[in-house]
Amino acid sequence: MSEIPGWVKALKPSGPQGSELLEHERNKSNIDVDQLSTFLFTREGMERKKRILDILQKEKVFDKSQNYFAGRIDRFETALARAKRLSQLQDAHNWTQDDKMVANDLISEPGPYGLHEGMYLITLRDQGNAEQHEKFLKPAQAYRHIGCYAQTELGHGSNVRGLETTATWNPEDQTFTIHSPHLTASKWWIGSLGRTANHAVVMAQLIIGGKSMGPHPFVVQIRDLKTHQPLPNIYVGDIGPKFGYNTMDNGFLLFNHVKVPHISMLARFSSVDPKTNRYVRPASPSLVYGTLTWVRSTIVMQAGGVLARGVTIATRYAAVRRQFQDRDAPEWEQGENQVINYTTVQIRLLPLLATTFALHFTGKGMMALYAANQKKMSQSANSGDSKRGAGPEETHSGSDLLADLHATSCGLKSLASSTAVEGLEMCRRACGGHGYSSFSGIGPWYADYLPTATWEGDNYMLTQQVARYLLKSARTVLKGGEPTNDTTSILSYFLKRQDQGAAFDILGSDSDLVSAFAWRASFLTFEALRHRDEQKKAWNDLLVDFYRLSRAHAQYIVVKNFYETLQAPTSELSSETLAIMHKLFRLYALHTLESEASEFYTSAAVTVRQIQLARTNAVMNLLTEIRPHALRLVDAWDFPDWQLDSSLGRKDGKVYEDMFHRAAELNPLNRVTINPYPDSPILFQNNDSASLKSKL
Amino acid sequence: MSEIPGWVKALKPSGPQGSELLEHERNKSNIDVDQLSTFLFTREGMERKKRILDILQKEKVFDKSQNYFAGRIDRFETALARAKRLSQLQDAHNWTQDDKMVANDLISEPGPYGLHEGMYLITLRDQGNAEQHEKFLKPAQAYRHIGCYAQTELGHGSNVRGLETTATWNPEDQTFTIHSPHLTASKWWIGSLGRTANHAVVMAQLIIGGKSMGPHPFVVQIRDLKTHQPLPNIYVGDIGPKFGYNTMDNGFLLFNHVKVPHISMLARFSSVDPKTNRYVRPASPSLVYGTLTWVRSTIVMQAGGVLARGVTIATRYAAVRRQFQDRDAPEWEQGENQVINYTTVQIRLLPLLATTFALHFTGKGMMALYAANQKKMSQSANSGDSKRGAGPEETHSGSDLLADLHATSCGLKSLASSTAVEGLEMCRRACGGHGYSSFSGIGPWYADYLPTATWEGDNYMLTQQVARYLLKSARTVLKGGEPTNDTTSILSYFLKRQDQGAAFDILGSDSDLVSAFAWRASFLTFEALRHRDEQKKAWNDLLVDFYRLSRAHAQYIVVKNFYETLQAPTSELSSETLAIMHKLFRLYALHTLESEASEFYTSAAVTVRQIQLARTNAVMNLLTEIRPHALRLVDAWDFPDWQLDSSLGRKDGKVYEDMFHRAAELNPLNRVTINPYPDSPILFQNNDSASLKSKL
Repeated sequence: MSEIPGWVKALKPSGPQGSELLEHERNKSNIDVDQLSTFLFTREGMERKKRILDILQKEKVFDKSQNYFAGRIDRFETALARAKRLSQLQDAHNWTQDDKMVANDLISEPGPYGLHEGMYLITLRDQGNAEQHEKFLKPAQAYRHIGCYAQTELGHGSNVRGLETTATWNPEDQTFTIHSPHLTASKWWIGSLGRTANHAVVMAQLIIGGKSMGPHPFVVQIRDLKTHQPLPNIYVGDIGPKFGYNTMDNGFLLFNHVKVPHISMLARFSSVDPKTNRYVRPASPSLVYGTLTWVRSTIVMQAGGVLARGVTIATRYAAVRRQFQDRDAPEWEQGENQVINYTTVQIRLLPLLATTFALHFTGKGMMALYAANQKKMSQSANSGDSKRGAGPEETHSGSDLLADLHATSCGLKSLASSTAVEGLEMCRRACGGHGYSSFSGIGPWYADYLPTATWEGDNYMLTQQVARYLLKSARTVLKGGEPTNDTTSILSYFLKRQDQGAAFDILGSDSDLVSAFAWRASFLTFEALRHRDEQKKAWNDLLVDFYRLSRAHAQYIVVKNFYETLQAPTSELSSETLAIMHKLFRLYALHTLESEASEFYTSAAVTVRQIQLARTNAVMNLLTEIRPHALRLVDAWDFPDWQLDSSLGRKDGKVYEDMFHRAAELNPLNRVTINPYPDSPILFQNNDSASLKSKL
Repeated sequence: MSEIPGWVKALKPSGPQGSELLEHERNKSNIDVDQLSTFLFTREGMERKKRILDILQKEKVFDKSQNYFAGRIDRFETALARAKRLSQLQDAHNWTQDDKMVANDLISEPGPYGLHEGMYLITLRDQGNAEQHEKFLKPAQAYRHIGCYAQTELGHGSNVRGLETTATWNPEDQTFTIHSPHLTASKWWIGSLGRTANHAVVMAQLIIGGKSMGPHPFVVQIRDLKTHQPLPNIYVGDIGPKFGYNTMDNGFLLFNHVKVPHISMLARFSSVDPKTNRYVRPASPSLVYGTLTWVRSTIVMQAGGVLARGVTIATRYAAVRRQFQDRDAPEWEQGENQVINYTTVQIRLLPLLATTFALHFTGKGMMALYAANQKKMSQSANSGDSKRGAGPEETHSGSDLLADLHATSCGLKSLASSTAVEGLEMCRRACGGHGYSSFSGIGPWYADYLPTATWEGDNYMLTQQVARYLLKSARTVLKGGEPTNDTTSILSYFLKRQDQGAAFDILGSDSDLVSAFAWRASFLTFEALRHRDEQKKAWNDLLVDFYRLSRAHAQYIVVKNFYETLQAPTSELSSETLAIMHKLFRLYALHTLESEASEFYTSAAVTVRQIQLARTNAVMNLLTEIRPHALRLVDAWDFPDWQLDSSLGRKDGKVYEDMFHRAAELNPLNRVTINPYPDSPILFQNNDSASLKSKL
């Protein structure tokens, strides 16, 4: 493609410029953006982000300009180069784990060291003993070993008990034989395994004397440390392209009777005694269990920010983009209307904007709950209240707090990640045709985030655990047990009041709005209990009800957390900003309520008339009241342009200039000249496509 | 990557093989698959597909095995080679347009000749006069000209009136000057323009004597016929990567005062008289208008088949995939449960399966309506009943049939494409983790289909046109006008009955079920009318209501078409198959009804108790009854494996073998050996990555 001609360079977008439109929008509101950002992220967090952004932007390897164009192999190789450089920078600048996380957030792509750092090191640390720390953890921390966490298999996802890979104890030479008996036993989807790792924590069925003791973790070297070739009797590779996440080398792994020494089995919680050949039972399985709960809590915490990227992009673009005149505008008003003025756009974007804050505050609340629980858990770790071998419906009886936290984290993980996924796609479509361009920045981000709805517990599977917990709580309450936590409190209240009915003033009182959500979740709980315990319905026939129940409970938790955040003394916010946050709370709650109207009717939490009023008056009025503040509210999420990497979401509103620049100047396809006629070769000989490809 | 070792080749999936599971499933049902396929597609259609598939599969250029791996440039170049070969095959085998369409369906990727064939030729044919046919259409039909249709601009999507590109009439030399006054005037998203086309139909504001006459089509040569370089003062290129559709070169185009001769303006409907310099008004704008209606009808027709691909893949995989034991199963039953047995999977897949048929039959109905209307339209074409300059709310007054067809096509296009998009994504997620792999075949297909929700009328924008029509019909009915079509009939019925209320036996009578949908749509129509005409609400404040109204109306049309298809004498189907089709009808209708429950309550079409029963009894029972037939029902959609290109959706159930084959043997990333340590270059020197890249 030739140089851009002068007459093209001279062109500007027509009408009011994007920068003018955004400035105009920002002038409509007097929310103090910096104050709100500080409230969300703390001063320290914001400064950390600035400091690290400065460092990254100076490094050529982190240049993003070819990200949307490059193919799989190049993207992977670039991601690997970035991971290496990041590891060097961490050393050079003495970065903490938090610093590194911020750097990864800013880079915003999964990298080949991801599972080494996120799972391998942590598993070794938490599940290895001192000897294993010395042998495995130290070289891993020094990046001489690069590891991954190999659990799921080609034929086995969520159900860990169904794993086929075996680790058979050999008393004669005190080794384990790791083996893949079938094709479906192949480890699959394992991040960082495909091309990068030379070690793996392999989850395998431990077999002693012909008896299976369930899945346990084994550290196995899989590639040569010098040549990086697979070791004998190991077959390993990348599983191929995915909908997103293509900068990561998710891999497969098969073992053909591979022997590993006794030290390979991570032995902090359970082990094989080499003298007696006996299995030593785990000290406390609930500690392991806690890790998953923690991972889910962070997913809830992140979901607000994940969604906020899409909302930021779509809201800014909706203020720049203009289309059609207002039908009710006078004839002489020629200009096209900003898209953000259309109620069909507002009804999609503004409730999502409210959701970003709702999820953020809920995430914060969850983290606090987790921290509080950590103490209690380590206190009870030695009390031996675990019940091995009990069915899953009963395993939660150990600690009330653990069970409550676990159930809450399952339901919230499912709701939060589904909400972020669906919200991002809604943001993308709200951008109209340009939302489909990679330059929108939403599509690639959505595609990379999507697996969150499946991993760490499939969003459908998880809801069973929530239901199981709620049913159990309801049984306790029915037996007259005193409320010991929030769940049993709302269930008890419902039980006492159900014959008098509810009279929640959802349009007049914020606390009544929260109560209406509690009432509906309680109603669904007792209804499900009746189906299961009285009508003896099959568990499988109730899964759909359980899904709805879990969703209802999680929505209640979110509404409650949002409400309580605003009730707490929030002197950090001006009264003006606080007032807008209250409106966002009401918008989130009422919009959710009217979207789920049918359950609110059925439970008699509200009347049909209240829902109608919520829909036609309250929500529509809130849209009008919040709309002038939309730009500043997304600004408060404080995403640097470099992080968003979006033409449509540019903070300065130069949407069209940026779209054009990327298409005309960065796009390598424009360097290829094709021959368009059917009876001719594809390319003209004089173009540089072949050489181009070796560069890309 | 080295040769696959013998011990790996010897591995098989564990447990019952996929082929056994699918055979077992198929044996549960006695639906005659071939009979149902014939009912859907006709014998001729099925034979045509077989004949063309045979030809394509023999051609190396159509080999799909690298589709999911190749990068943008390679995919585009391969797509171009395929387009060329297809054009040769069309000549060699004397293919009709229908044959070619089937070939494109089987290949299943957008190609660089797509807009030449789909829009350029058709626009020239329909809007050119005899002289223009000679000059432009003939060389285009011979592929000496390759064209595209350049309408949307960087700053202008749905609103054609807002286009900025100008075509100014120069009386002195009888030419037009085509010009792009701003950056936002750049043509954008134009299929086949980026690299392929050497001609374009350019929509530009016609300016005569300083006065704008609105947008008109001009044929403009944009690239040299020999060198394929852009002509002087034309800047053209590809707009860059997109979420999908990357085998197509969507392009941009800017003009710097480019002169074209008088013949360039397509003159069948309107023209400039070069003697008088006067504008000659269009004969009948409604004929042009008909084309869009036709395009939308085909989208409805296709949506069923588009969704059916996802449902086929997900249903087959759900029968092969097994996970967890049934909680209520006895301890000694060790095997994992087929995923299709879980009600949370059934509630997602089986209503979508019903939807595929619902959309197919509705599409058929629409095509018939269109054909019937074509005659009427050409009869009224010369009666001059068009009203130029009237506001959009009034333009539909020409012909009752046209207005009805147009409104129906808008609402159905919006509903059908949204349903297919959301349904495909639901199918993808129902496949669990493997749904995220490109080898599922759903993700890439979803990504390519996605723009259908935006083009040919944004799915939100379109609903305004439906609402406008329904309000107008309601006004007619209120004034006492006699019902002249189905819309005015259902509105009249509602008006007569509204004070007595409805008593639809939705669980007992199929026709009552249809009536309940009509009632709810009518209720929402009169409610919207009250808001607009009595309460004088702003149009913009009603857009959300209009969206809901349009959706309700379209759902009524779908339910009605499904119902009527099964009422017609369908001797082609066995009574057994017909009974299952009736169950599918009820599942579609009742599942939709309970998903939209709140509007059905509010309109008093049904009671709360009826909805509860629909949800907890009727829908759940239908899932159980339809489930044994699921495999044969998707088989009836008759997709060859070659078309689906999906590991998960293989007709023989060899899911895991195929996943493994693609990952281990086809995946080029596995030929790259990286160096994993932070302080080292990315690649080992002895690997073939660089040479590999020049091949990919």
